[in-house]
Amino acid sequence: MGSMTSIDHASTPNASASLAQAPEPADALVAARATAARAASRELAALRRQDKDAALLAIGDALVAQQERVLAANAQDLARGEANGTSASMLDRLRLSPERIEGLRSALAELAALPDPIGELVRGQTLPNGLRLRQVRVPLGVVGVIYEARPNVTVDIAGIALKSGNAVLLRGGSAAQDTNHVLVEIIRDALEASGLPRYAVQTVDDGGRPAAQAMMRAVGLIDLLVPRGGHSLIQEVVRNSRVPVVQTGEGNVHLYLHADAPLQRSVDIALNAKVQRPSVCNAAETLLIHADAAETSRAVLQALTAAGVRLHADERAAALVPELSLEPATEEDWATEYGDLQMAVHVVDSLPEALEHIRSYSTGHTEAIITDSIASQQEFIRGVDSAAVMINASTRFTDGGEFGLGAEVGISTQKMHARGPMGLSELTTTQWIVEGDGHVRS
Amino acid sequence: MGSMTSIDHASTPNASASLAQAPEPADALVAARATAARAASRELAALRRQDKDAALLAIGDALVAQQERVLAANAQDLARGEANGTSASMLDRLRLSPERIEGLRSALAELAALPDPIGELVRGQTLPNGLRLRQVRVPLGVVGVIYEARPNVTVDIAGIALKSGNAVLLRGGSAAQDTNHVLVEIIRDALEASGLPRYAVQTVDDGGRPAAQAMMRAVGLIDLLVPRGGHSLIQEVVRNSRVPVVQTGEGNVHLYLHADAPLQRSVDIALNAKVQRPSVCNAAETLLIHADAAETSRAVLQALTAAGVRLHADERAAALVPELSLEPATEEDWATEYGDLQMAVHVVDSLPEALEHIRSYSTGHTEAIITDSIASQQEFIRGVDSAAVMINASTRFTDGGEFGLGAEVGISTQKMHARGPMGLSELTTTQWIVEGDGHVRS
Repeated sequence: MGSMTSIDHASTPNASASLAQAPEPADALVAARATAARAASRELAALRRQDKDAALLAIGDALVAQQERVLAANAQDLARGEANGTSASMLDRLRLSPERIEGLRSALAELAALPDPIGELVRGQTLPNGLRLRQVRVPLGVVGVIYEARPNVTVDIAGIALKSGNAVLLRGGSAAQDTNHVLVEIIRDALEASGLPRYAVQTVDDGGRPAAQAMMRAVGLIDLLVPRGGHSLIQEVVRNSRVPVVQTGEGNVHLYLHADAPLQRSVDIALNAKVQRPSVCNAAETLLIHADAAETSRAVLQALTAAGVRLHADERAAALVPELSLEPATEEDWATEYGDLQMAVHVVDSLPEALEHIRSYSTGHTEAIITDSIASQQEFIRGVDSAAVMINASTRFTDGGEFGLGAEVGISTQKMHARGPMGLSELTTTQWIVEGDGHVRS
Repeated sequence: MGSMTSIDHASTPNASASLAQAPEPADALVAARATAARAASRELAALRRQDKDAALLAIGDALVAQQERVLAANAQDLARGEANGTSASMLDRLRLSPERIEGLRSALAELAALPDPIGELVRGQTLPNGLRLRQVRVPLGVVGVIYEARPNVTVDIAGIALKSGNAVLLRGGSAAQDTNHVLVEIIRDALEASGLPRYAVQTVDDGGRPAAQAMMRAVGLIDLLVPRGGHSLIQEVVRNSRVPVVQTGEGNVHLYLHADAPLQRSVDIALNAKVQRPSVCNAAETLLIHADAAETSRAVLQALTAAGVRLHADERAAALVPELSLEPATEEDWATEYGDLQMAVHVVDSLPEALEHIRSYSTGHTEAIITDSIASQQEFIRGVDSAAVMINASTRFTDGGEFGLGAEVGISTQKMHARGPMGLSELTTTQWIVEGDGHVRS
């Protein structure tokens, strides 16, 4: 993914400053905007659902009504990208169109239709002493997002944050800076026209790379930082941030064909998991095959090869289909998230051996098994320490939309706070409210 | 609290090693024990509740049956503490007795009586495409705890971890090292006698301070690190750990008397919140008084003074009770968690002014209001960004036991993962399980 996968250096002369030496101005910029966002977040926390939903619809309408302005800015970003020799696939991620803007409006409308996570009663009871106790969902406050060159993320995240009562501090990729600038302006104008605080959506794009670094230091100013993008962006934020981070989107995803895996089902699921959209994090990267599933395995390997997948196979897997002359897998292949039409293939003699391989190499995203055995399914579920386990289904289903969560901030591969698709609830915390009548503790 | 509040230096010659320079052996020690704990945690995750509960009861019985051994080790720790000039209050925290050991058994029995958090269905539905989706509670895996000189924490934490299916890596204060050594041995023997893996409970006390530092670096080996102790221990862990931490137990707790606060209720709650147990984190530290509640305020300030509380008052508060000649509060008082019979007092002209003060100085633990106004209560709840809000009740109720959560790991003052009293659920994460019939994504 080249330079797009790390926090880019384009916008400032101080790109080489390390975290420790980063200049004061970026910290001051982030502090000022985060403080304004904090003030706005207090207003958002008290909003009624109907007012948030009306604002979401107003943002969608404004984006469509002002699409010429958006597309003009996007054309500037695209022209700059072309001049810089940006790849066609990156340009496609950067590109907006009337259809894509209409898609943004639809997504905002879907968000408006979702229940409000704020105020949800998580638990509650009247205690033996008569205290009335309840745990209620409240917004986190200020959510920071550092992302790359997909300008639709700007609108998605602003919408999810608004619905969950949070203010956002955005830092997008500089390749999309003109588009993002116009999108943020339209969003803020629509917020204001809806009677909501325009400072609820903040960008620090003008602060460049030092501002991204300052976000990672903004303890107490930003409640949660989410990196959205490629491996190196995520790792940079996870390693350097002192603000709490949720790690999302790294998927070294495994598909295991058990000894009893039916042939056609295995072919269908393997093709779907690998080929349907190979660039996304829930696409499968390693195929594990039980040695007793030779006929099924042959059919799967042939189908994958026919679909253009470059297979990296261990010796026993290669021997199943000698006519394909598969290239040998290396240790590195087991740990690789290809993100394209490549896949590693490993033969195991047992389900425990498959589990051991998964535990050694998985990033904790999604693992799938194909089997008709209840006992094997249970053993697989218990043995896998990942956010999602698929039984007789494609790994591609690990997705907030598919799970019915509506919007998605990303897919958490960590265990703390959120695990798997992060929807609206995952952008909240809780508050305990205790009502007494003069109660004291004895 | 002196040297007991930071990770103590007693056990090794390498006490001055910084995190970056810490010796290899500590990392190897932590890695070996965490790896053994990880293996044990996989067995624990699959246990039935009845087997975990039986083991909890067996541990309690073993502690009582072998109490002479425990008390002998404890006497060694106490003798060493006395020789070192340890304070009487610290020695009291360190001391076990037959009654306290019986208390540990009771706590384990109460834990056994609580529902099993593992396997709890958080959410679930059959999706439109027929996929059967469920989100289920699973253990975190390996929980690390760094704590100080209260040996009862060793048993409490081991019990909570076992019930929630987690293995633990313990690092206790060296002042309690002999007691902890015997407690861990008894716990492990009882686990083994119950057919559970003895390596589920691990100590790295023999690794001294470098082992505590190595725990903070053990990314991927330890899933969650909880510091339990004073301010400097907590800050040291929060600042230095690269393993996810939940910050617990810092309580700059506020009690606000609104303009309409009734006199007797205010006196009762203020005394309870400040005096009943001043050393704990849910004791109140700052009293905020509405200027219109002069008569009530006078009664509260007189009662607190009569109870031996040293008040640090702003000018207007001091002027309410000139006969008491209260000492003037400084800026530092507003931010101080005294942990003893001292309290800061500040007069405000409005509820918003009280909220502004709380937001400026609170550690996010607990804030209380005394009022009979529904509107003021709602404004207070919305304006406070802390784990718990008390309405007409003492701040002392913020406690896992009081909340009916049973056991408590600590009281989280952060927003991510857990907020407020951390019970069994807070030591879990979730896993999404998706069952299909050959489903592929279109």
